[in-house]
Formats: sequence, C-alpha cells, structure tokens
Amino acid sequence: MAAGEFDLIARYFRPLAGPGSLSLTDDAAVLAPPPGRELVLSADAMVEGVHFLPADPPGLVARKLLRTNLSDLAAMGAQPLGYLMTVSARHGTPDAWFAGFAAGLAVDQAQFAITLLGGDTTSTPGPVSLSLTVLGTAAPGAAIRRNGARPGDGLWVTGTIGDGALGLRAAQGRLPDPTGYLAGRYRLPRPRLGVAQHGVVAAALDVSDGLVQDTGHLCRASGCAAEIWAEAVPRSAAARAAGAAWLPLCLTGGDDYELAMAVPDAAAPALREAAAAARVAVTQIGRFMAGPPEVVVRGPAGALLALGAGGWSHF
Amino acid sequence: MAAGEFDLIARYFRPLAGPGSLSLTDDAAVLAPPPGRELVLSADAMVEGVHFLPADPPGLVARKLLRTNLSDLAAMGAQPLGYLMTVSARHGTPDAWFAGFAAGLAVDQAQFAITLLGGDTTSTPGPVSLSLTVLGTAAPGAAIRRNGARPGDGLWVTGTIGDGALGLRAAQGRLPDPTGYLAGRYRLPRPRLGVAQHGVVAAALDVSDGLVQDTGHLCRASGCAAEIWAEAVPRSAAARAAGAAWLPLCLTGGDDYELAMAVPDAAAPALREAAAAARVAVTQIGRFMAGPPEVVVRGPAGALLALGAGGWSHF
Repeated sequence: MAAGEFDLIARYFRPLAGPGSLSLTDDAAVLAPPPGRELVLSADAMVEGVHFLPADPPGLVARKLLRTNLSDLAAMGAQPLGYLMTVSARHGTPDAWFAGFAAGLAVDQAQFAITLLGGDTTSTPGPVSLSLTVLGTAAPGAAIRRNGARPGDGLWVTGTIGDGALGLRAAQGRLPDPTGYLAGRYRLPRPRLGVAQHGVVAAALDVSDGLVQDTGHLCRASGCAAEIWAEAVPRSAAARAAGAAWLPLCLTGGDDYELAMAVPDAAAPALREAAAAARVAVTQIGRFMAGPPEVVVRGPAGALLALGAGGWSHF
Repeated sequence: MAAGEFDLIARYFRPLAGPGSLSLTDDAAVLAPPPGRELVLSADAMVEGVHFLPADPPGLVARKLLRTNLSDLAAMGAQPLGYLMTVSARHGTPDAWFAGFAAGLAVDQAQFAITLLGGDTTSTPGPVSLSLTVLGTAAPGAAIRRNGARPGDGLWVTGTIGDGALGLRAAQGRLPDPTGYLAGRYRLPRPRLGVAQHGVVAAALDVSDGLVQDTGHLCRASGCAAEIWAEAVPRSAAARAAGAAWLPLCLTGGDDYELAMAVPDAAAPALREAAAAARVAVTQIGRFMAGPPEVVVRGPAGALLALGAGGWSHF
C-alpha cells in the first residue's frame, strides 16, 4: 500500500493544522465562525515558472503563497482566520522540498496568528502548482470594497511601489541588486494587515497587477477618474538606485502587494494613526476626480506621462 | 494592456458568481455565515493527466472538480453553501474550453443550489491545474466525523462500488464499455448529499482512494477493525458484466465518490429512510469489530481474500 501521500501530510502538514482542521484526517474542516462577524474569503493560485522561479527556496514560495492571500484580506480590512491549501508536486519531489515548504508556513503562521484548516496533496507531471484559500472575518458591513472611492478622495499607498517588478528582474539577473533587497521584496510580500480600516479608507485593493492598472480597477468600480503624481510615488532606496529609466516599470509592474486606497482628506490623520500602529508607511500619491474611469500619470510640473502597457495580465 | 485575463473572468466566471462574490471584482468575497451553523470546509486539486484525461470534455472536468468537493460535504453530513476556485491553463487555451468549463459548472450550480464566491485564473506552462474550496454548513456538533465507528456498527455504502476504477480503464480503452456507463461514472461522480445524517450515521467518509483503504481510514480514526463481505458489495450491472477478474480492482480502486458509513443496527431504518428521500441506494457490506485497525475482506463462505495494494496514493 503506497502510503507516501499520507506520510507527507502527516509529517509536514499536520503540524501546521489548527483548531477546526480535525488534524487533517477527516473529509473536511469544521469551524464555528466567530459570532457576529462576516466571512471574507479569497483564493489564489501560484505556478512554478509563472509566479515563482524553480530555484526559489520552497519556504519562501510557501510564504509568498500565504502572504499574497493575506494581502487580499488586508485590502478588505479583514482579520485572518485560517486557510486551506492544495499542493501539486512531481513524483520524486524530495522530502526536503516539502520540509522547507512547511517550515516557511510555520514561520508565517506564527507571525500572522493563523493555522491550516485543510487541503489536498496530489502529484502532477508538470510544474509545481499551488493554491490557497484564506478565510478572514470583518464586522458586518465593514469589509472595504473597491467601489467606495469618491471624487476628491486622496489616493494613498502603503510602503514602496515598484520593488516587486524590479525584484523579479533582479532575481532573474537582469538588474543589479547588490543587497538582495529587491529580489527579497519579489519573493516575500508584506501583507499590510491593520492599515485599511472601515470608516477611514473608502476603497482599497492590493497592488498585484501594477499601480496604474490597479488604480484603474478602483476607478472603474467607483465610477470616477484618478491622477497619480509620479514624483510622489514612494520608491525604495534600491528602486531609486536602479535609475530613472525604471520608473515606468515601477508604476506598471506587478507583485507589489502594497495597498492602494481612497481616503477622504478628513480621514487622513486616522489613516496615518492606523498605519503607525501597524508600523507601515503611507503616502498620498494622487487624487480621485470626477470623470470617466481613467488613470492619468503626471510627471514634474504636471506633464502627462505615457507608460505603455498598464499592467500584468495572465492571458 | 493585456486584458485577456479579466475578459475571461467577466465572460465565463462572472455569470456563475452569486451573493457574497461581489461579482468577482473585489479582492475577496464577503459572506454572512448562516447564524447558528458551523462551517464545513474542504479543498481538492485536480491536474490534467492525473485526475482527468486531456481529451475529457471541459464541462465534465469542471463538474467533477465541484462534485468531488461536494462529496466531501456529503460525507460530513453538511449542506453546500458556496465555493472558490482556481484555474491554471496554458496560454492559448481556446475560449471554447473555458466556455465548456463554465457551462458545466452552471449545470451543477443549478443542480446543487450553490454559486461561485471567488477564485483566481492564471497561466501555466504545464498541465491544466485546478483547485476548488467548498464551503458548507452543519448544525453545531452535527458534522459527521471518521472517528465515530464502534464495534458492532454495520458498514454501509451508497450506490455501487468499483465503477470509478473500471471507468478509468474504460475511458482509457482498456476495458469494454459498450454503453459508456463506466466511463461516465469515472468522469462524473454523484455526491450523495442528504444521506449521512447526524444521529443516524456514526462515522462516514467518501470512497475516493478505494473501498478497502478508505474503510481502513474509518478504522484507524475510530480505533476498531472491520470486515467487508465481498459478495455484498453492490456493483453496477456494467461492473458485473466486466467479470469476476475485476472484483479486486472494484474493492481497491479509487474515484467512486460513494459514501462508506458506520451505522448502528438500530439506526439502519433511519438510514434507509434518509437514503430513500435522497433517492440513493444504501447497502450493508460488512461490520465494524473490536480489534486493531485492520480491514479484512471475506469472500463466499467467509474465506479471507487477499487483494494486494489497498488503494491509491499520489506519492
């Protein structure tokens, strides 16, 4: 009897399992939802060679998988509750790969106070294919949508923009990255939990497809326009060191996993307070305006910048 | 701007989206859980070439993905609530594939009164890789576990056993299947929702890894032994027509997605009643016994049968 699949689950995934998981030995997890809260649910897939590089350490791959989903919860202003995960890996994948993968999850489970609820482990003849469904909760009506931006709201972002796209180039050896900072930002997003709060942030999403394209998503959902002030967009020291030629990529590249938020000016102090409590920088980079759902990017002295492709799409 | 990914979602997946999905245009779904109910959650992955054949019609693949997860809810005695899904497909996958995939989901959404809550669509350089996380609900404490079997309980199954494994051989052209019944059973499981009810069924799982192996899972979780009466195991007319040489595969092959249940004799009438209401056949095929967690299979006159490998494992 080929028990490898069950051995793998018992050895590497059961130690990650928390309340409700039934130790991963049943057909499903059973969980009493926190009373008086709404559920917030998101699912993402990651494929070797598309979302991560074959040589990436498995622990970082696992943490990126978990963190990209936590970033979706952060954008909704939700608190993490638990997750389910599927892992499809080739026959003959070494135990060390699974061990590293699970060790990465263990680190982030502790950091984000979340545990594994269930999932599935299968073989594949192709690239490693992963999926994760995260559950969070929010007070009723308090989940932050994309459709709440109003003309006059400030456009704010967390952290720095462009490190993800530059980091991919750095990881591929196409951009110098002497400190490894950029590649690290590509490999390990930082979900900005706790920053976007109901009553402060009117609309939010996480910047995964590129700042300009994702701001466009906010505009289309909210029925307004936006302008981005290129000079105001916060870039890391490493991104600035890469040179001005990379600015368009910073504004349109994906994988930042920072939040883009619509914030009425009156709520800006409250945003700064929440961000300080979460130890996250926030910066105003533009403004929403009345008009058709278009995003313009203005350079120094207000000149319009043309950026070419607006962001990343899988198809 | 490459909008193909968003077009795909809008065209094929948004029509499947229900309450809480926020039309698939936000970072996450938001759902008020039914008050006073527990959540029951399961996730499965399916990979082209492993769980389905490249030439399988995409609508059937989609329905199998949904139904294998619904089968997990059936085993827990839970009612379906909604699902999240990830789809990773090659660049250049024809629109017709996505259209067929979505059409299959639409059929089953109507049949099982369930809607899409969220998910992710990505590219892959390899085989189509799918995952689905299903949410269900059960009354508090009423989810049926694997660990409730007691010595003396009857071992019961729904439907017929072995069609899944024979159907795979039929679909591969390795077994005659003049009516297509067996291949159909492999391609389209029938989740047995409504049969396993709290207070009637003491323990249950769905038979996905083979009857003998899965009965062993019940035994290990419950701390008892079981015997299976091979002659009593219900087989379809098509399975019987395949001949006695296939009996071992019927008992050990996977992909049946029938339920195996521990039922005290006193509860057998209530089981029959629930099964009749769900229009599903139920059959007693053995009994749980005191002893170490082993499964024996007895043939005519009680002789022990040796079956070789006990079931399917991915590694």
